[in-house]
Amino acid sequence: MPELRKDPITERWVIIATERARRPMDAGFESERKPQGLCPFCPGHENLTPPEILAFRDGAPANQPGWKLRVIPNKFPALRVEGDLVSEGVGLYDKMTGIGAHEVIIETPEHNLRLSQYTEHGIELLLRAYRERMRDLKRDIRLKYTLVFKNEGSAAGATQPHSHSQLIALPIVPKNVMEELHGSSTYYDYKHRCVYCDIVRQELKDGERLVIENPDYVAIAPFASRHPFEVWILPRRHEACFEETRDDQCGFLAKIFSQTIRRLEKALDHLSYNMTLHTTPFGEGPLPYYHWHMEITTRLTKVAGFERGTGFYINPTPPEEAAAFLRGIKL
Amino acid sequence: MPELRKDPITERWVIIATERARRPMDAGFESERKPQGLCPFCPGHENLTPPEILAFRDGAPANQPGWKLRVIPNKFPALRVEGDLVSEGVGLYDKMTGIGAHEVIIETPEHNLRLSQYTEHGIELLLRAYRERMRDLKRDIRLKYTLVFKNEGSAAGATQPHSHSQLIALPIVPKNVMEELHGSSTYYDYKHRCVYCDIVRQELKDGERLVIENPDYVAIAPFASRHPFEVWILPRRHEACFEETRDDQCGFLAKIFSQTIRRLEKALDHLSYNMTLHTTPFGEGPLPYYHWHMEITTRLTKVAGFERGTGFYINPTPPEEAAAFLRGIKL
Repeated sequence: MPELRKDPITERWVIIATERARRPMDAGFESERKPQGLCPFCPGHENLTPPEILAFRDGAPANQPGWKLRVIPNKFPALRVEGDLVSEGVGLYDKMTGIGAHEVIIETPEHNLRLSQYTEHGIELLLRAYRERMRDLKRDIRLKYTLVFKNEGSAAGATQPHSHSQLIALPIVPKNVMEELHGSSTYYDYKHRCVYCDIVRQELKDGERLVIENPDYVAIAPFASRHPFEVWILPRRHEACFEETRDDQCGFLAKIFSQTIRRLEKALDHLSYNMTLHTTPFGEGPLPYYHWHMEITTRLTKVAGFERGTGFYINPTPPEEAAAFLRGIKL
Repeated sequence: MPELRKDPITERWVIIATERARRPMDAGFESERKPQGLCPFCPGHENLTPPEILAFRDGAPANQPGWKLRVIPNKFPALRVEGDLVSEGVGLYDKMTGIGAHEVIIETPEHNLRLSQYTEHGIELLLRAYRERMRDLKRDIRLKYTLVFKNEGSAAGATQPHSHSQLIALPIVPKNVMEELHGSSTYYDYKHRCVYCDIVRQELKDGERLVIENPDYVAIAPFASRHPFEVWILPRRHEACFEETRDDQCGFLAKIFSQTIRRLEKALDHLSYNMTLHTTPFGEGPLPYYHWHMEITTRLTKVAGFERGTGFYINPTPPEEAAAFLRGIKL
């Protein structure tokens, strides 16, 4: 059984996935092991994966070809749904049983398609899959948060070439989300406004760091970008929970996500990136101070060591230059 | 002039190093550009670097061969010592002039030597250089913190092959240090003890996560290790400030640092790692609740994407297994 353990100083929880590695040298992501021959994510190989949790398909039977998108449990999950959530102390330390979910979203049946090559309808299906899985997992009262993320390119940590996203549902709220909740709630106490709403207003007014906008969403290069060409996508109006995105908004969200990625791919050779969805923890309801958003951080491998080693960031590309460059891209 | 900018939500400061990159594609560390031919860190090439700030040499003149260790300003610094520290608002954002220092510690005259191959005396010189530079920079009242770090191996971000450490002195305290100060001070308020002292006591008693110990220091695999084979080195007795390490302790610190790295190199093929020194901010004095320490995190490239994208960690190697494996290594 995997364990969740808390750092007693910073209160950062980590998963110690005891069953995943056999020997010290195996210390990688087994879920993303290089496939030996057959791709388990391709149509016709459904028997190589656990049975699907969700799929978008036109009438075809489950766990058979004919799907457009497919969600499966991770074959080597970091957390498990079965069992009781037990919290206990170990001397001064705290740990918890590794209850949760770990799923893989196979985004497309086509083996070699990158997200930037999907139709907008294809991207809309992906966003709807994120939403449906979050709505479903929210019903499990043991779970406090769902981390949705996508690693594109080997520099970003993707070793399975067939395009996919992942989802990890947790019985705790991750530290980076706690920090955002704390910071935005402090701002709200002082100003009685959502800090993200203020950011959206200022960026639409200044225009300098604006990448693109549409009636429902904006894409900006954040003022204190940690990474070159970092882009955040936010709803223009206050929305705390991603999973409450309405059907009529999904098209605009797909459009801005697609255009952002396509611009980044045109701007940067061999683009690798991480996308993370930041949303309100389950059970918090529509907070007045928190605003869901997507963070897209490109990976230029040279800077990777510094940030990890120090927890500090040096960004050689001012966000104003990155935004201007991305705005100027012809699609 | 580089700028320090604050994220308005998390209060994370980043350096936007406007002068370093010319075009979007240059967005790497110019300071660590691949050398074209001659190695600027080798003896005889002192004219390729800015004049030295500190060197350990036996009588030879400055900026000439004959040194054992040499500290120079970074040729492409992220921050500059010259100028006034000015803080101002930009709408809802905050920024500050990029005042600070960025130095390179050339650890050895030998081009191909890795830290694990130094004599203990060589490592002691390196630790003394960290200490001397911190003592000197502490006198500049504009500076609040010195970040000392070393990236070993290309997976860890080192692109200059000649072994070196870096130091960045900042007019702010980095967020990860603020978090440690906050967490350890909360623990102190509750327990009236230093959390790190409690960790040292518990680890010496349990033994499970202990890697090595000597009369002055311990090396442990932390309970909530983020990375496989993560190791922390801490003074056994309460010490808040690294730069107050006494001469008679330097030998023991060199010994435990050297033995830790040598064990890691024997345990893991193609070892790449980041070392960061965590110490009390300048001007805080000897805090009763904070304890300086070194964090060494190995890099197994497969997991790199996940942590960056999500801010969350999955560690496939329990620290108890890592510690037992490292204890069992014959040097």
